[in-house]
Amino acid sequence: MKTAADELFREFRAHSVSEFFRKNAAMLGYTGKIRSLTTIVHEGVTNSIDSAEEAGVLPKIFVAIKRVNDSSEHFKVVIEDNASGIPREYIPDVFGKMLAGTKLHRHMQSRGQQGIGVSGSVMFGQITSGKPTVVITSTGNGEIVRADVMIDVDKNEGKILNEEKFKGKWQGTRVEIEAKDVSYMRSRYGPFNYLRMTAIANPHVRITFVEPDGTLTVFENATNKIPDRPKPMPLHPWGIMSDDLLILAKHTKGRNVVSFLSTELSRVSRNKAQEVCRLAGIPPNKKPSQLTWEEAEHIVSAFKQIKLHAPPTSGLRPIGAADIESGMRQILNPEFVYTITRPPRVYRGGLSFLVEAGIAYGGNAGRTTEDRGENEKGESEVGMELIRFANRAPLIFDQGGCAITTAVRNIDWRRYGVDPAAAPLTIFVNVVSAYVPYTSAGKQSIADEPEVLTEIRTAIMEVARELRKFLYRKIKIKERQERAGVFEKYLPIIAKKAARLAGMKEPDIKPLLKKLTGVEYVEEGS
Amino acid sequence: MKTAADELFREFRAHSVSEFFRKNAAMLGYTGKIRSLTTIVHEGVTNSIDSAEEAGVLPKIFVAIKRVNDSSEHFKVVIEDNASGIPREYIPDVFGKMLAGTKLHRHMQSRGQQGIGVSGSVMFGQITSGKPTVVITSTGNGEIVRADVMIDVDKNEGKILNEEKFKGKWQGTRVEIEAKDVSYMRSRYGPFNYLRMTAIANPHVRITFVEPDGTLTVFENATNKIPDRPKPMPLHPWGIMSDDLLILAKHTKGRNVVSFLSTELSRVSRNKAQEVCRLAGIPPNKKPSQLTWEEAEHIVSAFKQIKLHAPPTSGLRPIGAADIESGMRQILNPEFVYTITRPPRVYRGGLSFLVEAGIAYGGNAGRTTEDRGENEKGESEVGMELIRFANRAPLIFDQGGCAITTAVRNIDWRRYGVDPAAAPLTIFVNVVSAYVPYTSAGKQSIADEPEVLTEIRTAIMEVARELRKFLYRKIKIKERQERAGVFEKYLPIIAKKAARLAGMKEPDIKPLLKKLTGVEYVEEGS
Repeated sequence: MKTAADELFREFRAHSVSEFFRKNAAMLGYTGKIRSLTTIVHEGVTNSIDSAEEAGVLPKIFVAIKRVNDSSEHFKVVIEDNASGIPREYIPDVFGKMLAGTKLHRHMQSRGQQGIGVSGSVMFGQITSGKPTVVITSTGNGEIVRADVMIDVDKNEGKILNEEKFKGKWQGTRVEIEAKDVSYMRSRYGPFNYLRMTAIANPHVRITFVEPDGTLTVFENATNKIPDRPKPMPLHPWGIMSDDLLILAKHTKGRNVVSFLSTELSRVSRNKAQEVCRLAGIPPNKKPSQLTWEEAEHIVSAFKQIKLHAPPTSGLRPIGAADIESGMRQILNPEFVYTITRPPRVYRGGLSFLVEAGIAYGGNAGRTTEDRGENEKGESEVGMELIRFANRAPLIFDQGGCAITTAVRNIDWRRYGVDPAAAPLTIFVNVVSAYVPYTSAGKQSIADEPEVLTEIRTAIMEVARELRKFLYRKIKIKERQERAGVFEKYLPIIAKKAARLAGMKEPDIKPLLKKLTGVEYVEEGS
Repeated sequence: MKTAADELFREFRAHSVSEFFRKNAAMLGYTGKIRSLTTIVHEGVTNSIDSAEEAGVLPKIFVAIKRVNDSSEHFKVVIEDNASGIPREYIPDVFGKMLAGTKLHRHMQSRGQQGIGVSGSVMFGQITSGKPTVVITSTGNGEIVRADVMIDVDKNEGKILNEEKFKGKWQGTRVEIEAKDVSYMRSRYGPFNYLRMTAIANPHVRITFVEPDGTLTVFENATNKIPDRPKPMPLHPWGIMSDDLLILAKHTKGRNVVSFLSTELSRVSRNKAQEVCRLAGIPPNKKPSQLTWEEAEHIVSAFKQIKLHAPPTSGLRPIGAADIESGMRQILNPEFVYTITRPPRVYRGGLSFLVEAGIAYGGNAGRTTEDRGENEKGESEVGMELIRFANRAPLIFDQGGCAITTAVRNIDWRRYGVDPAAAPLTIFVNVVSAYVPYTSAGKQSIADEPEVLTEIRTAIMEVARELRKFLYRKIKIKERQERAGVFEKYLPIIAKKAARLAGMKEPDIKPLLKKLTGVEYVEEGS
């Protein structure tokens, strides 16, 4: 018997992840002409910096955006790095297969996380311009590969159309992506500002940028110190769920539960693992692959009963307060700056993160009305400038839905002597974690995880308190200067008149004046 | 020679889409204990209503949320519908394979679009409770299937653990999902409000809801009229890109370019297709599969040179102003309501959409301070209540990043005589399209596509103008009533005193009073 369902389900089909993101390119950040171009730059640059850091190389990035055929909406983006290069056999997967990469399965702090980014750019280039992405790369083995890569969207597979090999002593990767329906602007949402913000948060990176009109800008590196290489950080038992445990058990090399727990989780010694087995009623020599859901649940609750060291934070790589300060000083030239790196915290029980914050007042800090006009999305924004980062990568879109924005909005700024609509103020926040809870695959906005939100708020309030002190001192100094001004103005006149009346020679009142106003200044410092 | 790259790329791996969303469950709406539970209800209910409408059945949905083991964080969600049922062979894919479904590839207005929703719920249930989802379904062929379904996350495949078959005359689907780490609350973000909002926007749907404490609520259907079945709407040439065209060409049954263009695109007759071929310099009998990128580009630009009817809007299924009004009246019991369904518009050149809006004032409209306290995410919100829908499905999360919110924020409410922080005001917006531009896979927020944003703003301003008229009349009436009050109070006294002074019998002033105040009221209506 044919039913309605049989009819309806004739239309049932499975789709590839590339097809999904092709239809929903906005989820990857390809929405709007300016944003789409910035997203290409963002994906290329984050990949380049990540891979240079993994290779232990001081990142030097070259970015060029060139107009194609004098069109105002057709560009070629070139991104070149000095990182490890990509072995020939991985080129199709790196650039043409979504959800493939070196980072997705390791709990390690990096800018990219998902294995979608650069293949998304290849796809966007392909669907707007019809052109393959040109990849030129060498691992430093004396051979340079040049490959034209496209994505087979139906299959989520990369394919190489043309390939050439050269001899040459060079190491790194150069990617050239052509895209249509994009436009270049030097606005808050354009590539220039994206790179400028990258420079603020990555003082060890040198970025050379050539704009479509040929303007060359070099963001010099302010330090030659390469950040520590990112380290995989095993999950900590506090944040683990039964399902995580069973997935780890399926892939572990540990041959019994004790060795499994002590090798796959952080802060678990063999002794602790044995204690957990005892509490959970599980034979210590049981095979990990034979753990049942119930046993996994028992292990999870047993971990809550024993003492453990807090999750490791050694893998977190903050920028550091000093570097944030010099970055902000360099770009904003403010009257006052204060920056902090807060101690690590944990969210969802076991995922470690930390927050860095900075505040700058005066100079070029704060956003001008003109800047606000550049907002292509018509968001309503506060007068202060908020610059957001996650693992040092700038977040410049989707500000409205981000935990950092929520934190700033929830602060009563009048308590800090600040009118957010008018103050020349820039707030800097960087959230550092092996696992930043992004709200979408576009990675431009951090989810409101309660612990993360609270910590961001605390960090901002901490720097805001220092600003309040500064503003208070500033008012006091001004008041005292005004008072001193009164003496400076009237004492000489009084001295003159008094001398004349008394028939005496006019006294030198400068020492007195100095003493009077000097006393004032000494007091003011107390 | 071993290079750094060879070392680094040993870690290279490919991942399944299920694995990706398992790690990034927040992108699907599984974030926070309350929201996660609401998301399960949302996915089940949207699927049920969609499939009842596709089958031409008046949707009757049963939802129950039960506590498991008296836990405050462990629940079973039951969702049952009277739709077409699911043929046995599709059960694993419907519930266990992400990016598989009947809707993703058809340009058709539906609540679900992506083939992720319900498999996301199955996965969330599985990773928090370890339990399979129980599916009981029958296509009405006399056989009822009961299957326990789990997802193989590594492979993105559904598998049936247990299966039973019964004889029985019933048609529909019942899904039972167990989840831990969720909590139930009757807040703005909880399932109760989700269902209440669904009822407002879907007056043809009957929803029965049993809460964990056993409270039964029936949201009766207000109409027996089933909305028209959703129809696939082919893309219109104005919104098409070369890449879309080549993908259509790859899958078309048309044997030459003319028949391809006229069957796969809307508003393209054979004559128009021939005209386009001529303009693009393409032989009309060329095989579609042999079209090159350049030819596709020529076709796209040729379409811009010829006259075409605007994109079809017959497939758009709005709620209708009258039904929105009765929904708002029923739930809010306001003093004033005004609702509109705007004419269809087009965004990105060829994607048709329309906006419906409603405004309610007084009664239970607007949000109380108490409601605001329920906001689990600590968003800062305006005093007015904004209820957002896309294709009749409520959007209750991610309000900050949504185009509807942006539109409301960009309106100068004082011009409409309204203080958004205090007015008892509810704004209703429903965006209708075969392709709603969601910002993320969680589908709770609409991207700021310029045409969509403008149209939402226009719709809200249109209903706000009617509110302004109402508020103006209200003030006028109040003023006139006050004036009439003066007559009512003093005329009898004057009449009495005057009569006494004149030594006359006190006149009956009621007719005069009526005339006076009556005149006032007649004037006020003009």
